[in-house]
Amino acid sequence: MEVVQVLHMNGGVGDFSYSNNSLLQSKVISMMRPIVEEAINNLYCSSFLTTFTIADLGCSCGPNTLMVVSQVIKAVENVRGKLNKKPIEHQVLLNDLPGNDFNTIFKSLPKFLENLKLEIGGYVGPCLFNGVPGSFYGSLFPTKSVHFIHSSYSLHWMMDVPEGLEENKRNIYMADASPKSVLKAYYNQFQKDFSLFLKCRAEELVDGGCMILTLLGRSSQNPASKECSYIWELLALALNDLVAQGMIKKEKLESFHITKYMPSPTEIKIEVAKEGSFVIDSIKVSQVDWNVSNNNQFNKGISDVSSKGSGYNVAKYMRAVIEPILISHFGEEVMDELFIRYREIIAERMAEERTQFFNVTVSLTKPK
Amino acid sequence: MEVVQVLHMNGGVGDFSYSNNSLLQSKVISMMRPIVEEAINNLYCSSFLTTFTIADLGCSCGPNTLMVVSQVIKAVENVRGKLNKKPIEHQVLLNDLPGNDFNTIFKSLPKFLENLKLEIGGYVGPCLFNGVPGSFYGSLFPTKSVHFIHSSYSLHWMMDVPEGLEENKRNIYMADASPKSVLKAYYNQFQKDFSLFLKCRAEELVDGGCMILTLLGRSSQNPASKECSYIWELLALALNDLVAQGMIKKEKLESFHITKYMPSPTEIKIEVAKEGSFVIDSIKVSQVDWNVSNNNQFNKGISDVSSKGSGYNVAKYMRAVIEPILISHFGEEVMDELFIRYREIIAERMAEERTQFFNVTVSLTKPK
Repeated sequence: MEVVQVLHMNGGVGDFSYSNNSLLQSKVISMMRPIVEEAINNLYCSSFLTTFTIADLGCSCGPNTLMVVSQVIKAVENVRGKLNKKPIEHQVLLNDLPGNDFNTIFKSLPKFLENLKLEIGGYVGPCLFNGVPGSFYGSLFPTKSVHFIHSSYSLHWMMDVPEGLEENKRNIYMADASPKSVLKAYYNQFQKDFSLFLKCRAEELVDGGCMILTLLGRSSQNPASKECSYIWELLALALNDLVAQGMIKKEKLESFHITKYMPSPTEIKIEVAKEGSFVIDSIKVSQVDWNVSNNNQFNKGISDVSSKGSGYNVAKYMRAVIEPILISHFGEEVMDELFIRYREIIAERMAEERTQFFNVTVSLTKPK
Repeated sequence: MEVVQVLHMNGGVGDFSYSNNSLLQSKVISMMRPIVEEAINNLYCSSFLTTFTIADLGCSCGPNTLMVVSQVIKAVENVRGKLNKKPIEHQVLLNDLPGNDFNTIFKSLPKFLENLKLEIGGYVGPCLFNGVPGSFYGSLFPTKSVHFIHSSYSLHWMMDVPEGLEENKRNIYMADASPKSVLKAYYNQFQKDFSLFLKCRAEELVDGGCMILTLLGRSSQNPASKECSYIWELLALALNDLVAQGMIKKEKLESFHITKYMPSPTEIKIEVAKEGSFVIDSIKVSQVDWNVSNNNQFNKGISDVSSKGSGYNVAKYMRAVIEPILISHFGEEVMDELFIRYREIIAERMAEERTQFFNVTVSLTKPK
């Protein structure tokens, strides 16, 4: 399996689409808003640009895609207004893999811009949008052409399946039972990927440019910590149930691996220091409940807070993210049954304990 | 009708798709190759860039989209090789209206790049692709960010329906019978559109940057000349036949107008001089037979050169271009009948006379 060819969120606007199941990711973007605003403030004040070029990596397609853009443009316009500077051009580079639904984003732009201008009030300079198809583990933009890079909930996806996972039978991800060689294989791949990512972005950012990355991670030093592995452990349980029922072949399960790495702040710091192009302005760990409606906000229309209902919601948004990869490995015909079982398992656990995702957000600057 | 919202080529890969009916446009791109190569040669030699940014305006989606890109990148690599310079980054900006099928272009890029590298041989620097959705009668790119702008068979589309066409009943375009006020209305709109286009591009091009535009036009001074109006006159005949049969209401036909202007070289020269940002390096008129297989090349699989067969081909490629606009005005249900009648009329005329499109190609430089 080549991750690049298979990875995309569930398209369209159906019940299992990413568009309709991305409230968790939206919540995370909102949580990071103060960090984005601070970075934009520092960046704008130190440079007084006439064109401000921002890139969102792994933009996907749905309400969150333009939420980030709106947040950044508003932050720029806010500081510009305070400093009483002339209007500037906003260039917005939306990146995702070539399989992403850029057409739908593009068609929504005229309406988005209309609303944005109303929300900001007053004159806003030209907002120039580009879709940039390609893997962020490679060159995307010309040398020294971007001022601000943002990426939320994308960079935990690896470029490739790590080599040497043969002994990780039935685990699908790092687990307590995984051999040390498996943990090492995942970590090696993370180091390679993250370092390549930093190198590419360092070339593309202007001197003084900055970058805010939020990815699924952990606070623990243990890469198989429940903080990051629990959701996959439960998916492995559901898959094993289907093996027991004869719906999935044992060999199929044993050759399936989640191609994500959820690093600790320390692991990120090490790679940033090794690669050498960036300084870290801040690095933070935050938590969000699996049941996003427990998180005080965004409690619209998904108010079924019983563990059964929550299990349903969690299984649905996990499906929106992971289904294309599962289909490419196991086939489409077992998906409904798999996600029914996954939902039941999730609901059982959520009834017993508080379940959370851990995010790591790092703010980086490329020194002048 | 807002042209921007309705205008796009027929999508997909079906029998009437633009993808499968764009041989004429492909022929025209090939004819202009020496002009493109000369411009690239001059541009590269006078600047020695590390990033070469090209934009194709009205790129559409189909084999021709990447044909232009391939032509330009090869021309750059050729002159770079001759001068023995270091590899450079190629940034490619593909522009069309937001309704264009960018997804299909993006998915075809990995294969395209693979082939391009094989064809060029040796190392080619990074080729960075962007999709840029929007009207070229407005800002698309940041100030002074593009080196070379190309547009083929797009700029004859107007931004808006000219005002004051009420007296042009049943003509759909400028015709011998059209009142002078109609010719003036079309010309005024052309002047406004073309001048706005030049102004926007002048801001986006670097000093010394250049632009090659090919559009349907004419050599005659008469804007209702058969050179440019004949194909629309025949469409008007077909539409009038459907009115006579009661399939289309008279009022519907009377309110339909082709939103194209096909200028003479003199009209282009006047606008360029008035706008003042560019100098004209060359301006040429060329002809292509309606029956593209008469044009010596590209005679693959469409070798039905009887006038009946040719009529079929011409009606098909006209359908690929004009059908979305016709559907938005007349409804989908009359399309099959309309294009059967159009095909018959075209075939009759082609049996009697040599029918040709006239192209105007202008090469412009923004002085340093």
